[in-house]
Amino acid sequence: MRVLVTGAAGFVGSKLVSSLSADRFIRISGRGTDAARIDEIVAHDILKPSVQENGPRIISRAGDLSNRAEAEELVGDGVDLVVHLAAVVSGQAEEDFDLGYRVNLDGTRNLLEACRRLAKPPVFIFASSGAAYGGELPETVPDNLRLTPTTSYGAQKVIGELLVTDYSRKGFIDGRALRFPTIVVRPGAPNRALSSYASSIIREPLQGKEAICPVDDGVQIFILSPRMLIRNIRHAIGIPASELGFDRALTLPGIRVSAGQMIGALRQIAGDDVVARIVRRPDPQVAKVVEGWPGYIEATRARSLGFVADNSMADIITAFIQDELGGA
Amino acid sequence: MRVLVTGAAGFVGSKLVSSLSADRFIRISGRGTDAARIDEIVAHDILKPSVQENGPRIISRAGDLSNRAEAEELVGDGVDLVVHLAAVVSGQAEEDFDLGYRVNLDGTRNLLEACRRLAKPPVFIFASSGAAYGGELPETVPDNLRLTPTTSYGAQKVIGELLVTDYSRKGFIDGRALRFPTIVVRPGAPNRALSSYASSIIREPLQGKEAICPVDDGVQIFILSPRMLIRNIRHAIGIPASELGFDRALTLPGIRVSAGQMIGALRQIAGDDVVARIVRRPDPQVAKVVEGWPGYIEATRARSLGFVADNSMADIITAFIQDELGGA
Repeated sequence: MRVLVTGAAGFVGSKLVSSLSADRFIRISGRGTDAARIDEIVAHDILKPSVQENGPRIISRAGDLSNRAEAEELVGDGVDLVVHLAAVVSGQAEEDFDLGYRVNLDGTRNLLEACRRLAKPPVFIFASSGAAYGGELPETVPDNLRLTPTTSYGAQKVIGELLVTDYSRKGFIDGRALRFPTIVVRPGAPNRALSSYASSIIREPLQGKEAICPVDDGVQIFILSPRMLIRNIRHAIGIPASELGFDRALTLPGIRVSAGQMIGALRQIAGDDVVARIVRRPDPQVAKVVEGWPGYIEATRARSLGFVADNSMADIITAFIQDELGGA
Repeated sequence: MRVLVTGAAGFVGSKLVSSLSADRFIRISGRGTDAARIDEIVAHDILKPSVQENGPRIISRAGDLSNRAEAEELVGDGVDLVVHLAAVVSGQAEEDFDLGYRVNLDGTRNLLEACRRLAKPPVFIFASSGAAYGGELPETVPDNLRLTPTTSYGAQKVIGELLVTDYSRKGFIDGRALRFPTIVVRPGAPNRALSSYASSIIREPLQGKEAICPVDDGVQIFILSPRMLIRNIRHAIGIPASELGFDRALTLPGIRVSAGQMIGALRQIAGDDVVARIVRRPDPQVAKVVEGWPGYIEATRARSLGFVADNSMADIITAFIQDELGGA
């Protein structure tokens, strides 16, 4: 089985490549209940991802999916599974309108078109986002609420969902568009996502560094840990198409936490000295955008399909310490 | 003021051009409460629309909006109002996947990009459709229901709505995406829209011809007359941007009628002999698609903004007889 992961230099992509490579076998839609063997993983990003060779052969590739020919060459004569994570993040897509549409819309479309030309439709996982939601949102967002994004990034993600569903309905791919909650705690450095602070305020203080919190204690966010995200992506790969029906987009389950609750959980686990490294510097622009995102999404459909959320903020912090800080 | 109408060879486009040309003045968002004078109307379609010169200068143009350069040339240095009606209809977009995306998605995007380059953002009306809805629908569809189209045409229309809202939010256009109910009674010949029958069963019998009814009496459809559609488009042009807010997509109000009720109203107005020209020839494929469309959409937002529906099926038939058959 040949697997393509786009955005593989990002933290979700690299974790997924490691996970798939380590296990070597994965259950995949359309191949019955036995796990299928992964023979090759193509790890793709705009800059060549650094990869560690484990089980299957891992091929690192650089390129621009917004170039149709490059997308076609990447997909080649056949691929059994595509996990399309590559995207320009929310803050950047908001600043650079053309770049956002070129990468997030044209890039996705090019990849779908390349897959459409294959003899056998691949399983196609598309990373959507809670930024698909916007406008006046109820306290608890039901699965069937209209998606009215208030950022270009959100619009591009909803468009991607519509394309994945339409290409699946036509039998060109076997797609699954997963709306990711905000992923916390992201490892690595702060990025240009407007939600970047939510990871920073845990990650930096635990490593002796200052972190800026741009929102008030009360600002809530809907989150999922990297560990549980990888588990959910792997689960999505295995769900039979018949269980999904025509609508291929869903929100992954998450938990709702306020900035205050996040900081409280950090204090319980790591103490006052660590929390003291958080600098409060309110940024009304960040707060406004984040408050426009849904605080809690029911994700009833995802739960009934076997997707899972974390248990608590404490669990999320503990998982981060185990997975990224060597347990210390 | 310079106006561009795409799809101007179609019946909605040609009616709108006639209406704007006859009145010469129209209230338009961003220019206060006085009606602005129309100096030029560009009537555009894939084939050159035939136009009658009335008040303002009407320029008939042929071209392909899926060609970026043609879209830019058409918009030129400035346009104050764009009414973008051009589209590949539902049946055809379903048969020819590439054509549908090229015209309905790329064409719309090219036109939006051309408008974005203007010094002054134009008012931009986008024709969306009730086909934006799909899947399991409640008996009465609320305005905030998630859009899960089950045709490529529907997906392309929802994507258009998202683009119009995003381009408006960025200040590139002052857009309004209007989801049209099924327009009944369309003048002219049957087309490849899957809803074509709903006009045929009124239009053809009134003119002494046979018409095929492919659905059972009970199959309901959500409709609006051409007369009221033109009135609603003109209304949409005039609504101040501040009344709309960031979300620029809405469903126009309509009435819900079953095939049986349509035929009953025709019988009351035109008698048994006319109704006898309707041939029942059930087509499960058409019935399946039409039953997937919403029977009734609340359109609360549109109503509160002053958009209007017809009063009854009898009114709709009478308007058709007046407007298209010279009252006979």
